[in-house]
Amino acid sequence: MFGVTILGNNSALPAYDRHPTAQVVTLNDQLLLIDCGEGTQMQLSKYKIKRSKINHILISHLHGDHYFGLPGLITSMGLLGREHDLHIYAPAALETILNLQLQAGNTELPFSLHFHPLENFETILIDEKKFTVEIFSTEHRVPCWGFIIKEKRMPRKINIEVVQQYGIPAAFYEFLQKGEDYTDKKGHTYKNELLTIPNKPAKSYVYCADTRYVEKNTKICSKATLLYHETTYLQNCEEKAALRFHTTSIQAGKFAANADAHKLIIGHFSSKYEFLDDFLKETKTVFPNTDLAIEGVTFLV
Amino acid sequence: MFGVTILGNNSALPAYDRHPTAQVVTLNDQLLLIDCGEGTQMQLSKYKIKRSKINHILISHLHGDHYFGLPGLITSMGLLGREHDLHIYAPAALETILNLQLQAGNTELPFSLHFHPLENFETILIDEKKFTVEIFSTEHRVPCWGFIIKEKRMPRKINIEVVQQYGIPAAFYEFLQKGEDYTDKKGHTYKNELLTIPNKPAKSYVYCADTRYVEKNTKICSKATLLYHETTYLQNCEEKAALRFHTTSIQAGKFAANADAHKLIIGHFSSKYEFLDDFLKETKTVFPNTDLAIEGVTFLV
Repeated sequence: MFGVTILGNNSALPAYDRHPTAQVVTLNDQLLLIDCGEGTQMQLSKYKIKRSKINHILISHLHGDHYFGLPGLITSMGLLGREHDLHIYAPAALETILNLQLQAGNTELPFSLHFHPLENFETILIDEKKFTVEIFSTEHRVPCWGFIIKEKRMPRKINIEVVQQYGIPAAFYEFLQKGEDYTDKKGHTYKNELLTIPNKPAKSYVYCADTRYVEKNTKICSKATLLYHETTYLQNCEEKAALRFHTTSIQAGKFAANADAHKLIIGHFSSKYEFLDDFLKETKTVFPNTDLAIEGVTFLV
Repeated sequence: MFGVTILGNNSALPAYDRHPTAQVVTLNDQLLLIDCGEGTQMQLSKYKIKRSKINHILISHLHGDHYFGLPGLITSMGLLGREHDLHIYAPAALETILNLQLQAGNTELPFSLHFHPLENFETILIDEKKFTVEIFSTEHRVPCWGFIIKEKRMPRKINIEVVQQYGIPAAFYEFLQKGEDYTDKKGHTYKNELLTIPNKPAKSYVYCADTRYVEKNTKICSKATLLYHETTYLQNCEEKAALRFHTTSIQAGKFAANADAHKLIIGHFSSKYEFLDDFLKETKTVFPNTDLAIEGVTFLV
């Protein structure tokens, strides 16, 4: 299972029962939390997501609607007896803030908190057995990063009928999976393509918030299986969006189209909008395969 | 109207749809916020309390369940265009934390934020036309303060029948209200008690969290019209309560009885309790006029 569950889809301040930004990415048995607006720990409880399974937390930037829920989540993890490590990837200033908060509360966490300042990374942020997380810069009023979460390419599958037909020894199967050819004792070589079949293609989830429209990022985010792009305003607020370094519905659609994404979800709606239908309508005129990032919904990658 | 509305009644972490501590005190047209756990701004919206009317925020101590909602509330006030001053009374370290957060988000508030470190006050924290706020120390794991919000004694009322009977000039009424006697041209003095009647007695609301049982504070909180006392545990957890500098149901009742309070409300319930009935049952054995601090309920002082 590779999916993303929306916990908060609103920008700036909570409104109409929509919460500030937070998303949980599920990668088999691993959970990654992306951004952590105020109330995220309540949303995790509401949607029955186990916070103990979250080992990585990525914070895109230091506007409060993307991280004011983090100190509460961390201290709650401690109160609930967490003992395994937690990794936080965020702009450097957050480390100082968190440390001051822990110190002021005389709080000793029962687990190790590893802080990784985003400024220290060029591209690869996390390199796990089954996935990587890469970062890229967006253009916002403060330094802000986007995240690309990519499955690692799955090994090729043994074509059992064919390998048995040619009598390839089972001990060599693991090398076949890695793409090697097989040469028998007589010196005859069997091409890997003959003996194996390709596995499912590696999938990717791209998280892109907050930002104005940045054409060069369509290349960096190219061919995302699922792309999340912020869409703070409808198209008639294009000037305001530019001024505040945010994106409109049409711009988000254009970004997905130019990045050749498979599917787009849009969120980070301004609190001025009670209803969201027009966001979907406008974005779909440019990129039909779009959905609203509705809270509580899990999108499969 | 002098009342207190409960926004959060849970301790440490949110549970069973109970929120971390926050209360709004209404004093005619003024609102005071006491503590501001995560999600307070959402609770204010839920109960339709106008955040623009909050001019004073009191933070008892720097455990996260009492202030992690503050940065979000403040930045939201800014986003909503607040222009009038806001006063925060809290332990000094919070000023550094808030400033770092505003700086990291490159946030310029459109209103003046006045920070008043609680350490700087002996007793009187706020002295307004119609009320005062006094502070006192509780005994907790970190420095913690309680608050006494007192109406100022109302002026005495003119006894119209009597003043007309004696022909007291109307120009002297304001001095009568202040308690002065009246002496006429012939040198005859009319005692104030004869010409006026006492107004309603001044009422007080005492907020006492977090703390272990502190006998000497029953004197400081003496004769509260309405007393809020933390009650984290039931009586069978007395040892745990002492260890963690918290109070049990029976101890809270004893505190109210020894302080000769008129009415007690109890809150700050541990997340280990799904149901609260036993808190009420136990506390009432010692102090019958007790209510649970249920979220959304307004208690008149």
